Amino acid sequence: MLDSAQADVGAAVAGAELVFCAAPVGALRELGEAALAAAGPECAVSDVGSVKGELVAALGADSRFIGGHPLAGAETAGVENARAGLFEGARWYLTPTPSSGGVLYDRVQRAVAALGARPQAIDPGDHDRAMATVSHLPHVLANALVEQAADSLAGSGDERPPEIGPSFRDASRVAGANPAIWSDIFAGNREAVAAEVEAVATRLSKAAELIRGGDGDQLAAWQAEAGERRRALLEAELAGGPLIELRAFVPNRPGIVAELALALGRGGVNIEDMGLHPAADNRSGVVSLFVAGEAEAERAAAQVRELGHDVSRVER
Amino acid sequence: MLDSAQADVGAAVAGAELVFCAAPVGALRELGEAALAAAGPECAVSDVGSVKGELVAALGADSRFIGGHPLAGAETAGVENARAGLFEGARWYLTPTPSSGGVLYDRVQRAVAALGARPQAIDPGDHDRAMATVSHLPHVLANALVEQAADSLAGSGDERPPEIGPSFRDASRVAGANPAIWSDIFAGNREAVAAEVEAVATRLSKAAELIRGGDGDQLAAWQAEAGERRRALLEAELAGGPLIELRAFVPNRPGIVAELALALGRGGVNIEDMGLHPAADNRSGVVSLFVAGEAEAERAAAQVRELGHDVSRVER
Repeated sequence: MLDSAQADVGAAVAGAELVFCAAPVGALRELGEAALAAAGPECAVSDVGSVKGELVAALGADSRFIGGHPLAGAETAGVENARAGLFEGARWYLTPTPSSGGVLYDRVQRAVAALGARPQAIDPGDHDRAMATVSHLPHVLANALVEQAADSLAGSGDERPPEIGPSFRDASRVAGANPAIWSDIFAGNREAVAAEVEAVATRLSKAAELIRGGDGDQLAAWQAEAGERRRALLEAELAGGPLIELRAFVPNRPGIVAELALALGRGGVNIEDMGLHPAADNRSGVVSLFVAGEAEAERAAAQVRELGHDVSRVER
Repeated sequence: MLDSAQADVGAAVAGAELVFCAAPVGALRELGEAALAAAGPECAVSDVGSVKGELVAALGADSRFIGGHPLAGAETAGVENARAGLFEGARWYLTPTPSSGGVLYDRVQRAVAALGARPQAIDPGDHDRAMATVSHLPHVLANALVEQAADSLAGSGDERPPEIGPSFRDASRVAGANPAIWSDIFAGNREAVAAEVEAVATRLSKAAELIRGGDGDQLAAWQAEAGERRRALLEAELAGGPLIELRAFVPNRPGIVAELALALGRGGVNIEDMGLHPAADNRSGVVSLFVAGEAEAERAAAQVRELGHDVSRVER
């Protein structure tokens, strides 16, 4: 629910505990700086941009900034297209740094979970490389396919173009998606995207060689492998389970929460919820980690121990 | 309806007026040769393979062979997956050559139309190049995308793979489709497919450069153009209209029907139905051409006149 709209960042941020900056990727740095300038010392500032590296490099030294990227959304814009349940079950990447305040990270993470999303900490560079592969690259391939088809068919001299079947429709679906947003994303993640695109260009040159060779067995093996690898990619999402609470006993020092969250995220653990309990001496503390399912709990406990902390499981 | 099944080509073809050879692309030449050897002198032999060039080069000198390719089908096989209405409204390419018998071409064309499909004559090479672009190329791109993603994500060290969103799912949907069928298609159309794949590799190298440059305006213009070109490709299908009969007055010589059908196909005209009426002297004849809609009728008449034949429209 939108309770109040403000044209001015200072007015919008005044008195807030948590601020989400939502703007095209290219405008986020300026907006984030304005929000941090206006926000109080205990206010967490996050964002929802699809590219994280440059933004976190620019703002992440401020302990109040914790970058974010919800994997949800659509090609629609504006309050009129708001939708309850948009974030239900969606992964929401958070990119804390060693400078990030633990309490503030926890606040962002809880707010995200309260929206129904599944927060996951990730290194900004890892995030950008992963997004380059699974999201930005398919957009570039779709553009190249459309360019090629349009030029090839125009050059064929046939006035009736061939029927455009489902394989082409699917493969080109995102071609030319929202130019304002996507030019920002490509520019913001240019190194990672360009590297992926070049790697695919090399693969295609090899594929062309393989095809030109015309060896049926080799082609069938290549085709079969692609099918298996696609299935493996899509099946990699883990099944959940009942929520289990683990308690990690950690020194109460700056960056410890981000360190924990990042290690668990990297280790494939999805933290469904988190709680911070500083000890009375303020030098140590307990971090409650809620994860889904036995396998996830075991993995999480192992990751925490590997960082050198004790961990126990809360029996209910 | 399958009235009778025969294990032997000779038994299957005995007494037939029209034979459709249905087999994987790599097996069609042998099957077509067997069918032609078994078929009588007035029997038309066609096929339903996705690649036409090599097959028509091998069999097309026989006036009874008229290659075909219905744009319909699915990733299922076997009689148990038969479906009434499979060809309803589907385009069905036919590849007559100057050697093709006009009466036999007409028979194939009528049979295809009777199944609810829309027959269209096309040069085998044009067909293979068009299919390389709109059908075979998307399959190769899907494979390359999956390979790249699988290798990139495996190399990232992140145990929890990123969520695979809709853009990746769409772009990779046909990766690894039926290896036995697709290895045959790639091999059978290897030159055209390899050329398209190499062209896309070149486009991707340029796209990577553009992205690395990071110029927002250039990227937005590139993105906008891809969107417009995709829309233009998908909107190119023409709307139909009422069926109109044109009569073309042509010399009754071998290859005339194929010549007409190919010229109209190339000119973007879809012939919905066709009729042959040889004159008493057997040296001239009338070909009735049924097309859908006024625009199509005008285009068809112009094409026929361009070939040097008189044409009239039947008023009803």
